[in-house]
Amino acid sequence: MILPSTCKIGIIGGGQLGKMMFEQTARWNLQFHFLDSADAPCEKYATRFINAALTDREAIRQLATISDVISYEIEHVNTEALIELQLEGKKIYPYPQVLQIIQDKGKQKQFLERMQIPVVPYVMLQTEQDWQQGISRIQGEKIVLKSRTGGYDGKGVEIVEKKQLSEGYRPFKSGNALAEKCITGKEIAVIVAVDTKGNTQYYPPVQMVFDEKSHLVLFLHTELDITEDQKKKCIDISLQSATAFASPGLFAIELFVTETDVYVNEIAPRPHNSGHHTIEACYTSQFEQMVRILLEMPLGSTALIQPAAMINIVGPEEVFGSYVLEKLDILLEQPGIYVHLYGKKESRPHRKLGHITIVAPNKEELFNRVKKAEMLRVIAAP
Amino acid sequence: MILPSTCKIGIIGGGQLGKMMFEQTARWNLQFHFLDSADAPCEKYATRFINAALTDREAIRQLATISDVISYEIEHVNTEALIELQLEGKKIYPYPQVLQIIQDKGKQKQFLERMQIPVVPYVMLQTEQDWQQGISRIQGEKIVLKSRTGGYDGKGVEIVEKKQLSEGYRPFKSGNALAEKCITGKEIAVIVAVDTKGNTQYYPPVQMVFDEKSHLVLFLHTELDITEDQKKKCIDISLQSATAFASPGLFAIELFVTETDVYVNEIAPRPHNSGHHTIEACYTSQFEQMVRILLEMPLGSTALIQPAAMINIVGPEEVFGSYVLEKLDILLEQPGIYVHLYGKKESRPHRKLGHITIVAPNKEELFNRVKKAEMLRVIAAP
Repeated sequence: MILPSTCKIGIIGGGQLGKMMFEQTARWNLQFHFLDSADAPCEKYATRFINAALTDREAIRQLATISDVISYEIEHVNTEALIELQLEGKKIYPYPQVLQIIQDKGKQKQFLERMQIPVVPYVMLQTEQDWQQGISRIQGEKIVLKSRTGGYDGKGVEIVEKKQLSEGYRPFKSGNALAEKCITGKEIAVIVAVDTKGNTQYYPPVQMVFDEKSHLVLFLHTELDITEDQKKKCIDISLQSATAFASPGLFAIELFVTETDVYVNEIAPRPHNSGHHTIEACYTSQFEQMVRILLEMPLGSTALIQPAAMINIVGPEEVFGSYVLEKLDILLEQPGIYVHLYGKKESRPHRKLGHITIVAPNKEELFNRVKKAEMLRVIAAP
Repeated sequence: MILPSTCKIGIIGGGQLGKMMFEQTARWNLQFHFLDSADAPCEKYATRFINAALTDREAIRQLATISDVISYEIEHVNTEALIELQLEGKKIYPYPQVLQIIQDKGKQKQFLERMQIPVVPYVMLQTEQDWQQGISRIQGEKIVLKSRTGGYDGKGVEIVEKKQLSEGYRPFKSGNALAEKCITGKEIAVIVAVDTKGNTQYYPPVQMVFDEKSHLVLFLHTELDITEDQKKKCIDISLQSATAFASPGLFAIELFVTETDVYVNEIAPRPHNSGHHTIEACYTSQFEQMVRILLEMPLGSTALIQPAAMINIVGPEEVFGSYVLEKLDILLEQPGIYVHLYGKKESRPHRKLGHITIVAPNKEELFNRVKKAEMLRVIAAP
């Protein structure tokens, strides 16, 4: 095996996910090139930083020229440019064809259905008629509306009453929208790694709690409140989903677990918020695992070392602009609490500014530590 | 508490210790400035890198101007320049006066004796007479000779037969040498953190195995082969030693434990090879702890999460120049084995190129994993 230091990794996107890929493999002394607009969190860590739009074909080609392998830490990139490069023999993981499916939540659902993977019942909203009549095929008074493309971090999702739609409410455009049954169940996520030889490893499932307004993950933990049978179903469906793409990569599978069923909600083809705790809690973090896949190293052990939880640090409603963290000292005094900051200079409502990982030797102590961690406050800079 | 991202830390020296200080606090998004010669491992991580000699007074002043606080990751720096800056009100931890004592192994021993801390019996070699007669005051056929200044990484230390000296062997200059009793005992290290308020935390002691030829640590682990009473003595003496300096800082205390006694061997006023395993094995790594001290944050928990061991990756006798790592794949497949590479482009005999940390849930599994880790080989690049 060559010395990793000579490996050059090109990442499209320079946000917190790229930053943590860099951080978590800094002990291997790799070279990272990032493409994003200036002031992105990764700029200061890049061996080469390309200041350009994520869709800039020429910039993506430039990134490919200086990198041994290409990946992306955000879905909204130029897949055509990536397919061009792939045809020229460039290594791009996951394959851009995966991104084409996942970028469009409609195509994603159709793909999963074709692969016989259970998805939440849905209707594509292609025409005005679908908005008026199609939605009657979905059970319940409330439904979930999703923009098929362009959504991220809880944006592009709305929970509405059916009658709002009959009154003419149209938050997304026909042809770029779908409606889903509003599931009341537990939300579980499983991250699956697939290497270039097709080997797989899955991370221990986590249970997530979302903010009702922003649809962001507020909190997650490894101490699941589901049966062993449900857990097994989550893992099986996640492995089936990740391997369905027939591509190397890291796949975050978000699932709904109801009393009777397990459904796939959405899939992300990259390190994901539901795996941030793996930095401290697992032998191999999701970020290192992604880099191992890119460098065609063996997959690392995903075993949990200690029970873990994660809290997102999110910009509060009232803070716009520079900010400070209140009570950080209290968190720093506790064992097993790790504050991660993404280097974002300004806070905006619902903006992810960082996260806190909590680990402990047992469940009781974990939730004690979580209470301490919850004391952290983002406030406007004085 | 302010947002850590706005803190600027200046470090004299840009080797692996600085690199790991950066890595282990990258999640706080700090700004690090390093001063060292070009191509030092930290160059690529520095917000600002000052390319200069470690003794360059003007360069040190420049580092101070752009940094909120100054520290050093190597002992061979210009203490006069630091004292000047300290008088001007600059924060420098540990205080440069500590460095003045520790830089000179003779002064270090005299200081510890004055503080009633047990040190290995020794004789200062000031004159030719000391070489000839002074050494007779030291028991045993073999003695340890040390250069008082300029030694590092096992250099500046020699174990010799007394008769070699009577035959005129003089590896170090009179006035800059001392002779010590050659102790056959167990070698233990304890790292103690002292914050700006005088609070202390100590890391669980480790047992070290040294290479007889290079005097480098080859291997260390947390599964001590000493009695509880000896362990307590090690901790007490280490706390006493670290606080004797009356300065904030991280102090690595190396001790000899014999059947009847515990002696301090040497002290380093910085993160140390004997604490590399704390990255994966403890709640707070020694590197993060050092940064917490510099930023006047509360000290973090030093509790051990799992039993741990550490192996140095050292340049073998026969490799000069570029190198590759053989069997790295095998290590990457094992849980709880972490390979750290320092970004050194060339190998030389006894050069520290990296280290491997091994963690496991119990002692037996730890030593199984150590056997796997020992398979790694540094070989010349093909």
